[in-house]
Amino acid sequence: MIDFDYWSPTYIAFGKGKESRTGELVRQFGGSRALLHYGGGSAIRSGLLDRVKASLSAAGIHFVELGGVKPNPRSSLVEEGVRLALAEKVDFLLAVGGGSVIDSSKAIAIGAANGGEWRKYYVGREVKVRPVIPAALPVGVVLTIAAAGSEGSTNSVINLEPENLKRGAGGNILRPKFAVMNPELTMSLPPFQTACGLADMFAHLCERYFSPTADVALTDNLCEAVMRTIVLEGAKVMANPNDYQARANVMWAGTLAHNDICGAGRVQDWASHGIEHELSALYDCAHGAGLAVVMPAWMAFVYKADSARFARFAQNVFNVGHGLFDDEAALEGIAAFRRWLKSLGLPLTFAELGAKEEDIPLLLKTLNLGANTLGAFRPLTEADVASIYHLCL
Amino acid sequence: MIDFDYWSPTYIAFGKGKESRTGELVRQFGGSRALLHYGGGSAIRSGLLDRVKASLSAAGIHFVELGGVKPNPRSSLVEEGVRLALAEKVDFLLAVGGGSVIDSSKAIAIGAANGGEWRKYYVGREVKVRPVIPAALPVGVVLTIAAAGSEGSTNSVINLEPENLKRGAGGNILRPKFAVMNPELTMSLPPFQTACGLADMFAHLCERYFSPTADVALTDNLCEAVMRTIVLEGAKVMANPNDYQARANVMWAGTLAHNDICGAGRVQDWASHGIEHELSALYDCAHGAGLAVVMPAWMAFVYKADSARFARFAQNVFNVGHGLFDDEAALEGIAAFRRWLKSLGLPLTFAELGAKEEDIPLLLKTLNLGANTLGAFRPLTEADVASIYHLCL
Repeated sequence: MIDFDYWSPTYIAFGKGKESRTGELVRQFGGSRALLHYGGGSAIRSGLLDRVKASLSAAGIHFVELGGVKPNPRSSLVEEGVRLALAEKVDFLLAVGGGSVIDSSKAIAIGAANGGEWRKYYVGREVKVRPVIPAALPVGVVLTIAAAGSEGSTNSVINLEPENLKRGAGGNILRPKFAVMNPELTMSLPPFQTACGLADMFAHLCERYFSPTADVALTDNLCEAVMRTIVLEGAKVMANPNDYQARANVMWAGTLAHNDICGAGRVQDWASHGIEHELSALYDCAHGAGLAVVMPAWMAFVYKADSARFARFAQNVFNVGHGLFDDEAALEGIAAFRRWLKSLGLPLTFAELGAKEEDIPLLLKTLNLGANTLGAFRPLTEADVASIYHLCL
Repeated sequence: MIDFDYWSPTYIAFGKGKESRTGELVRQFGGSRALLHYGGGSAIRSGLLDRVKASLSAAGIHFVELGGVKPNPRSSLVEEGVRLALAEKVDFLLAVGGGSVIDSSKAIAIGAANGGEWRKYYVGREVKVRPVIPAALPVGVVLTIAAAGSEGSTNSVINLEPENLKRGAGGNILRPKFAVMNPELTMSLPPFQTACGLADMFAHLCERYFSPTADVALTDNLCEAVMRTIVLEGAKVMANPNDYQARANVMWAGTLAHNDICGAGRVQDWASHGIEHELSALYDCAHGAGLAVVMPAWMAFVYKADSARFARFAQNVFNVGHGLFDDEAALEGIAAFRRWLKSLGLPLTFAELGAKEEDIPLLLKTLNLGANTLGAFRPLTEADVASIYHLCL
């Protein structure tokens, strides 16, 4: 267990109808003029947006609106949001949606607090020391998708146009002040998006679990606990989208998978996310779908670096591989992981994702690894990443 | 999974030598004049207090001192602390010690922010709606004992003199702003105190795990993950008090056992704590030692209310009772729990604790249950509690 700082101050209001508390929570965390940021039509059609607005009005919160956030959120809309936030002198960003809306809100929160400047804080993995974000408006969330964990995380990823580069900003200053989490709001999500969310949250745990750091028994046990929950409750959600309890467990799991409670005390990897981001940047595919393709390929490529850990994963998460040698158990675990992803209806190959072998050089170029390596469980060279992309075929 | 609010904003600075950051953290969380509160001689003898003072001075924090906190912290010292805090106009309470020091600091923090009034916020379980604490000074912690979890919790328990009643106050306002957690500081703790700490944190999980609330798969899995860690890493700590990694896992487990991450979404019990508090109030025994006596007796009395849950506990925490009927597995689990407590050198009976059968009427009188019931897994009448005390003989 290595030294760590841990701070997860997001106030969670979890349960049925909790969106009615949104206005009160904005007020409690210092907001009086909010920018209400959201995505497409589902929040409007479901009546959620109206309920949120009613709650804001009841609490005396003035607000302006900006909808239209797309998956893999675009920098152009962030720019528009920053202009609006500055013009309207908003003091709070309220995200109603999933990870893309939250990440877009975080970017606007940075721009609005720094005279319009936000883009320079979004950098690639080649930048070893992230620029420190000096200020950001407070962000609150009404969550509608269990997936990205951005409602409790320090991170934001934006698709920077016109280059189409996915780049990230990070820092405790980006932790949302509150998250309203009503599992009912996730029930109308289509099966494919639900599945993508499960893959995304599971990946957030893998990135922390497959670590070169030893002696983190507690964090290991926590990771496995959340992973098991995602596998078992996720199956229930796919079988019955209106299973409130399963939706609730999955929704809370998505937050705990990424607020770093499952990362305390160890070096983290994040290679799969890096490899995937190039796919969703180029093909505009769902991040979770891209991860379903990349993660098993990454596992197959790296497991021999510590097959005992993969054997433990097989046994404690998928309940397979007991009594086998580590290498064999590891392969059983990876196979079980693939079966689980397939059972969710997720793609496992480039072809299923709509990605092309001939684009691999381009993917490597935008990843821009150069002479650096990616990840920590087994540091990957550019040639290694090329091999992993080929394993995705 | 029932609706819940969750907020755990304590900043954790975890690792070797982290006490050197104390002054910077006090400053970061708004303190400029601190009351430095601590217990007996060990923090002085070890040089910890000097290091903390040096850190405060380096950060330009003015401070006054009040030592002498005893286990089962006394109201008389709280009164003295409140007078001192008001006279010195302190704006921050810095606790250097374990749960007793932190709880005493929280009480002083209430008194200092409410014109001296703190005692009325400390009530017994017969008060169904706790009085809301209107204000409290911020509290920071340099933790030296892995046990009570008060470094991240909403609670404070004080022994109210002259009646000798243990009574509690609670509210999010009592969550410490930060906790410095250096596992090295716990290495010098005597084996008995280390064991008491393990029993205390394990009990905090049991009070949450043995619940009438169904469908909290994630919280159940988290609870079991932390309990397993305490059992296995606790054994390492007892065998080798200087095992840094085991100390680190145990220390972090103590926080997670009581910051309510393992209680989210369910009704909690807390009967064993209620039953035990009367013992430590009357006999001034260690809280963890009292819990070691009470918890197994409570389990033996209540398990039939949901023997499937106790069977799961047996299998998932102590790895016993597989393939048995629930009732049998439950008893195997309770027996394994007793064996674990005994292996730690903890008492299991009234006699070992120094408690007396003839005092049971007095214990029941101060518990003051009347016609109410205690706990939720199986609500206990006064007669039930009497039976549990007799099972402790």
